[in-house]
Amino acid sequence: MNAQAPSSAFAPLQNDTFIRACLRQSTDHTPVWLMRQAGRYLPEYRATRAKAGSFMGLATNTDYATEVTLQPLERYPLDAAILFSDILTVPDAMGLGLSFALGEGPKFAHPVRDEAAVAKLAVPDMGKLRYVFDAVTSIRKALNGRVPLIGFSGSPWTLSCYMVEGAGSDDYRLVKTMMYSRPDLMHKMLQINADAVALYLNTQIEAGAQAVMIFDSWGGVLADGAFQEFSLAYTARVLAQVKKEHNGVRIPRIVFTKGGGLWLKDMGQLDCEVLGLDWTVNLAKARALVGESKALQGNIDPNVLFANPPQIEAEVVKVLNSFGTPFIGEGTGPTHIFNLGHGISQHTPPDNVAVLVKAVHEHSRRLRA
Amino acid sequence: MNAQAPSSAFAPLQNDTFIRACLRQSTDHTPVWLMRQAGRYLPEYRATRAKAGSFMGLATNTDYATEVTLQPLERYPLDAAILFSDILTVPDAMGLGLSFALGEGPKFAHPVRDEAAVAKLAVPDMGKLRYVFDAVTSIRKALNGRVPLIGFSGSPWTLSCYMVEGAGSDDYRLVKTMMYSRPDLMHKMLQINADAVALYLNTQIEAGAQAVMIFDSWGGVLADGAFQEFSLAYTARVLAQVKKEHNGVRIPRIVFTKGGGLWLKDMGQLDCEVLGLDWTVNLAKARALVGESKALQGNIDPNVLFANPPQIEAEVVKVLNSFGTPFIGEGTGPTHIFNLGHGISQHTPPDNVAVLVKAVHEHSRRLRA
Repeated sequence: MNAQAPSSAFAPLQNDTFIRACLRQSTDHTPVWLMRQAGRYLPEYRATRAKAGSFMGLATNTDYATEVTLQPLERYPLDAAILFSDILTVPDAMGLGLSFALGEGPKFAHPVRDEAAVAKLAVPDMGKLRYVFDAVTSIRKALNGRVPLIGFSGSPWTLSCYMVEGAGSDDYRLVKTMMYSRPDLMHKMLQINADAVALYLNTQIEAGAQAVMIFDSWGGVLADGAFQEFSLAYTARVLAQVKKEHNGVRIPRIVFTKGGGLWLKDMGQLDCEVLGLDWTVNLAKARALVGESKALQGNIDPNVLFANPPQIEAEVVKVLNSFGTPFIGEGTGPTHIFNLGHGISQHTPPDNVAVLVKAVHEHSRRLRA
Repeated sequence: MNAQAPSSAFAPLQNDTFIRACLRQSTDHTPVWLMRQAGRYLPEYRATRAKAGSFMGLATNTDYATEVTLQPLERYPLDAAILFSDILTVPDAMGLGLSFALGEGPKFAHPVRDEAAVAKLAVPDMGKLRYVFDAVTSIRKALNGRVPLIGFSGSPWTLSCYMVEGAGSDDYRLVKTMMYSRPDLMHKMLQINADAVALYLNTQIEAGAQAVMIFDSWGGVLADGAFQEFSLAYTARVLAQVKKEHNGVRIPRIVFTKGGGLWLKDMGQLDCEVLGLDWTVNLAKARALVGESKALQGNIDPNVLFANPPQIEAEVVKVLNSFGTPFIGEGTGPTHIFNLGHGISQHTPPDNVAVLVKAVHEHSRRLRA
């Protein structure tokens, strides 16, 4: 399909702080956005979701997806927007039958657990994901250049976890059983997933995404060695195919492996611009390991948002200070994009998010003064 | 209470491979035992549990606890036994009301969520834990010197997680809310927990435990900085009080922080003999970081046990080889105790455990030849 929106359709970018930081260029403050920033902690999100009837009803309706993506930007001076969607849209388009039961996580009607099921897998027709690309274009237009729009996908390994388990898991027994006992099937699935994810991200870029992020949410459950073979190698396969620029404009690519702190040196070799980090990682150490090749994104514990404002401010300062002196000047240097170390909790008091965003902007400006 | 059993009551130790490896002395093979080795994957365990009626019925009955502790030793030539008990016995003795609903995890009737609840906490009378010490003495006698008996406790932080949450959690929101918003209360609870854990472990040692292990099962959910302040410092407080020898015999002390791989350098400073590692850690790197001061225990992915025998053997070889050349000779050097990186799954085929244990013994002997 041709999802390409003419670049003339989009207003010029006014706040490019996030994009500059991704490209390791200096900024006058540390940009901040929050994983899952359009979500259940916002009453206006819950109202739109109620109108939509279901999570997928929300994600597949262009107007609703646009509405909820912009909601957090109305409340907080965030430096980026992220497409409202789910990481499991691609396996759904492969025919696995995604659904969200009320109060539960995602579920696949047709999990992939044997050779026959793997043999049936193929890169899906992007036409089945048109609702995602339409949402990207619609959101980009609605943003009207305020801040850049981030597109995203699950990583090949993370998609495989859900595809084999059929749902969330606390031990990953089924997917690891396939991995250890039939590595040939796992590699085949991961290749298809990687090629599908690359095409999916490229089509999002053509539709208007100005940066893309790969969520390797479950890379951290793998053993040392298995991570490199079954997760990292396929993230690299995605990156090798994803556009680095579109219409002459660079498209930063972010990779986030939750629980991947032990493999930062390996991840430093990825052909991407930004590494996302969870809260277990020390930013100074991460900067020493990979700072010269990548920007770093993260990594405050989302549970900090349940403390009181002075404590939230103190924790923000700790995270900014742990990254160290921000880069100032021409050319490129070490840069930091502030974020949570994982998605925001649905129980978060919205006012506390305002405290966090303000503290990031103010303290990061002080650090540059 | 005086739980001390006269050392003359116990037979001399025949297989001291585990104790020697803990003390960084050479052995003719790499010792192996498995976290949760007495557990639901064994049909004989399920039969005893059915007789006992419940998990706590099993743990509080000396005969049953002895029976299930010895069951895996009848099947496999394991190099150590571990007390059958639960990590939450101490908060139960504090009056929190532990129960295990069928098919669910542990639950506390009286979670600790405010200042008043914290004010009521105190180191419990060890008399309330007599069933644990009686089980230790009974198991030690029943072992008759075959292999050493390991006692254990949850870490102060891990106990606090359950005490505040009241049950398992997937986001640790309540305990982290207390930690970030009322660090004073959290520190008070952790001090009490640490002193209680130390007394509990010392009483296990007096009752017959020949090594002790601290399970910091949830240390890995903490942010960098918070781990050092709220988990590691209190594990150190426990270790400062736990006996290093008993009746002239050294008692090795093992600390296992699941998800703690990023903090191995900090953990290398602990006053203990062994560090337990989960499967995300590379043993060669861990050895380089802490191998000169501690023995290492771990760390195969328990899901490897769902593969076929040749694949299980290959993964065992990988883990043994990743530690590198075993120490041979007099004095002390780097040593490895083979284990899983986490507790064995209840779904594990028992025959596969035999394959794993045999492979550890055979390949580790080959490495020394």
